[in-house]
Formats: sequence, C-alpha cells, structure tokens
Amino acid sequence: MEGDAGRDLGCQKTMDGKVNEDSTQADIPPCCLKAGAFAPDPELEANCHATVVSGWFSEQRSSDDVAKQMYFNNPMWPGEVHSLAVEKILFKEKSDYQEVLVFESVTYGKVLVLDGILQLSVKDECAYQEMIAHLPLCSIKSPKNATVEFIRNIPEGKYDAIIVDSSDPVAGPAQELVERPFFEMLARALRPGGVLCNMAESMWLHTHLIQDMISVCQKIFKGSVHYAWTSVPTYPSGVIGYILCSTEGPPVDFRNPINPIEKLEGALDHHRELKFYNSQMHRAAFALPPFVRKEVKCLM
Amino acid sequence: MEGDAGRDLGCQKTMDGKVNEDSTQADIPPCCLKAGAFAPDPELEANCHATVVSGWFSEQRSSDDVAKQMYFNNPMWPGEVHSLAVEKILFKEKSDYQEVLVFESVTYGKVLVLDGILQLSVKDECAYQEMIAHLPLCSIKSPKNATVEFIRNIPEGKYDAIIVDSSDPVAGPAQELVERPFFEMLARALRPGGVLCNMAESMWLHTHLIQDMISVCQKIFKGSVHYAWTSVPTYPSGVIGYILCSTEGPPVDFRNPINPIEKLEGALDHHRELKFYNSQMHRAAFALPPFVRKEVKCLM
Repeated sequence: MEGDAGRDLGCQKTMDGKVNEDSTQADIPPCCLKAGAFAPDPELEANCHATVVSGWFSEQRSSDDVAKQMYFNNPMWPGEVHSLAVEKILFKEKSDYQEVLVFESVTYGKVLVLDGILQLSVKDECAYQEMIAHLPLCSIKSPKNATVEFIRNIPEGKYDAIIVDSSDPVAGPAQELVERPFFEMLARALRPGGVLCNMAESMWLHTHLIQDMISVCQKIFKGSVHYAWTSVPTYPSGVIGYILCSTEGPPVDFRNPINPIEKLEGALDHHRELKFYNSQMHRAAFALPPFVRKEVKCLM
Repeated sequence: MEGDAGRDLGCQKTMDGKVNEDSTQADIPPCCLKAGAFAPDPELEANCHATVVSGWFSEQRSSDDVAKQMYFNNPMWPGEVHSLAVEKILFKEKSDYQEVLVFESVTYGKVLVLDGILQLSVKDECAYQEMIAHLPLCSIKSPKNATVEFIRNIPEGKYDAIIVDSSDPVAGPAQELVERPFFEMLARALRPGGVLCNMAESMWLHTHLIQDMISVCQKIFKGSVHYAWTSVPTYPSGVIGYILCSTEGPPVDFRNPINPIEKLEGALDHHRELKFYNSQMHRAAFALPPFVRKEVKCLM
C-alpha cells in the first residue's frame, strides 16, 4: 500500500545500512539522516517509509505521500507538528479499517498510531485513560453499568455511565460523534442522574468545537454540563479535554467526587495503582483559565 | 554566521521563488517543500537557513548545522521535537549574547526564540507569565518589593517575593541556577515569610531534576516548599513547573491564596484582564499526579 519513501528520497545510503556515524558530517540528504543519538537499526531503516522517516515519527493525516507526511499536518491542528524519535518499529500493517503502527519511542515508551494519528504512549496514556474513566465514575455513588460501545441498540435508561473515547471529528465516520443525534442517543441510554464523559479536544486549539459540543449537550442533558481538561504531552498542544454531562435526576456534583478513589476499598490491594488520577487531579481538571470561559461563552 | 542551508540541501527551486503550487507532486527534496496550506513568501524562502527550514521552525540546541537543526534536538528533551509553521520571519540577529529570532507563527501568533529555544508565543505566554507571577504574589498579603534580577548584591531580608524566570540548566551559565548557592542567595534576600517562585521544568520529563531542586530548597527554605505546574502548549511535553518556597516567618499557604486576584481592587477597571490565571487555576496548579509524588520522593 505504501510507496517506498526511502527510495523516493534518494536515501539508499541509509537504506543499505551504511549510516555515517557522525551524521552531522554526512553528505546524504538530511531528511534521511538518523538522529545521532541512536545507533543504526537495519529494521528501522528498512521501514524508512510513509509514517516514520529517518528515525522520527511525525503526526499527520494521510500517509500516502512523503511530502505530505513531512510537511502537511492534521487539519485539526494546523501549523504544528510533534515528532517522536523512534527506537524500533514493532508492528505496521493495514487492517480492513485502519493503518496500524506500533513503535518503541525513545522518550515515551511504546506508541500506538492509527491512520497516522498518535493514539497513546505507554508513558502518558495514564493521563488520558485514568481521567476519562474516573472523572465520571467517581462522580456517582456505585457505578455498575458502564458502556463504551454498541450504543445504537441499547435499552433506554439502562446505564449509570457512558464513556466515549471518540476519534477527532475530521470528515469521516467520527464527524457524527460531535452532533446532536449522537448525544441524544447517549442521553436516552442513561438512567436518571446517569453520567456521560466524552472526549472534547483541546482548550488551546478547539474552543469553537468545544462551544458547539457544550451548547448541544446543554440542550440535551438536563442535569449538569461541565468541561474538564488534563495534560497529555503526546497530544496536540499537550492537553485533552472532556465534556461531563448528567441527565435529569439525582444531581451530580462533578467537581467534588462523591465516590473518591482514595476511599475505594481494595483498590491498592490489587496492585491496580493509578499513575495519574487522584481526587486532587479530579478537582483540578475543572479549573478553567479565563480565556476558555471567554471563548466558550455557554460555559457556566 | 549561518550556512546557506537552503543551497546545501539543493533547494534552489524554492530559493528562487518558483514553488510548485501542488507540492505533493513536486520533485524537489521534500525537506525544502513549503507546507501547502501557506502561500509562498519570498522573504521567508530567503531565510531558508539554520532555525527555520521550509516554512517550519523546530526547536533545537545548536543552529550551526542543518542536519543538527532537523534531527538533533535538545538534551533537556531528547527524542521529541515540536515544530511550528512559520508565516513570516520578523527579526533574526545575533546579539552579543544570543541568537534572537522572532517570527509570526501560523497557530500561536508571534514567537520569540533565543539560541534556538522557544521562549514564548503570543498565544500561550499568558500561561507561563501569569502563573509565575501570581502564584507567589497572591500567596502573600500585600507584596510591595519583588525582584527578578541583580540579586547578587541585594541587601539581606529586603524582598517580599522573588520570581526567577530562569533558563534550562543545560551546560553553561544557567547551570548554577539550580544549585545550592543560588538558592541560598535568594533565601537571604527574602524577608521572613517571603516567597520564591522559580521555574522548575516539566513533571513529565524532569522528575530527577525536580527532585534535586526540591531537596536543595527544603534544606534552605524553612517555611514551605511546593511544586506547581501548568499547561504551556509550546513548551516540551506541554507543561511547565514552578517551585514555590517561603522563608521562616509568618506561614505561607501557597495552595490557598490569601490575596485572591478576584478581590484585587481595580484589576479589571484598568483593562489588565488576565487570560489564564484565576484563583481556581492557582489551586489546581498544586494538584500532582501520583506518578510525580512517587518519582519526586521528597515532595510532601
């Protein structure tokens, strides 16, 4: 499926494994130099293709074209690119649905990439995952029924909590995940006083989108609607946000967890130690800078 | 001072201004293609040199070498590079002390770079600056004397607050800014119950360094020592931290500002509206993920 980007770039000198040790002195194209700090790796070099070039992964939208891959970036975050040094490519294949890439990075451990978009790294996945799960689940008393999938045909009023770890709403199937019918479906599936936590982009880059989502949710969720955020270094602008909503019913005070993780019996006994989430981080996630309140007018 | 990186890369096709409109189809080296989203800019192309190549700025340590600039990055944050699309270079000159670069970025407004290291952008400087100033100043009752410079010869016990916006402690003059004699000097200059706010790197990348700084400060500052952090998208890993210390004397409760900005008379009247800081953000800054407390053992 992929062009041999390495050859297109004229990087046979790296492709054949003869990498100049002191690459600052090399006369091969800089786009095909490996970072000097890392030893040459033949397997890595053989993968000098669409998404990893010269030992660096750069986030992108489409991986068909080398030029695109190096200098055209995602429409969701134009004008910036975060690149990670690659120690070893572990897996790369095109499934029926997505192009899947897994690599060992130099700083962030193993990294999963789908269709050129970084999904998670071992080092910082704790921030996104622990927050998206615990922000809603620690905000209700005794969550039993939670779902993340197959919500189209679920019975009305069934769930205590729904967690939506959606894709970015660029053109394609993910688009509908920020639209009204989707949120109506979620609200219907929740019990009275049930909670939704939905991925909601970056407060630095997407206040227009956050405004749209919040205003749709305020119409549909008659309990409360809040925005929270946390730090995720490998995501664009270094943060990710969540919309927290509750349906009409027993009131939910998202900002003060009624079900604090510290009091959860046996949580530590089972070595299920959290790396990122605690009740302090929970409360802090709802603190918003003045510029966010100014740009997202519908936030209370 | 700089080599003509453009020519070295064989990018005359962009240097002479004839940029292929659809650069995905171009046969010039991808390292010299401009991002398709931005119109060709002759002035920018003429600056196809050390720190900006092909319309993108990438953070780096040394700007003497194109290969270095593209693939060798800062020893403080190895294995990752954040790149910003450049709309226009506004200023570039080598002063007696530093190489100064100012450019208009596509996403973050004007950006200041010193010796290849991004210092601030118009879009997110509010986060770093407002937090470094207000975290200490809102933690004491009526700050009158604050300083950021010339502390070597200042009288003992003079200052209510000292704010240190230091460079990263890579080899060079900044190294001493994380060492014991420096903090002793600061402590001496503060009145009893006076406060220090010192830049303290990233909790994601530099827990070893944070551990060192905190443990030095705990020996010197007999009041309290805390770590706080906030989101700054254009800094490595998207966060920056601060060490907050107070000297022996009236106790300082950094986590609950005694002098809340919202109550400051006339702050809004003078159109000195803050974009990032408020008392919510102040309190949130002290929330630390479990992994930080685990890695920075001396934190209380």
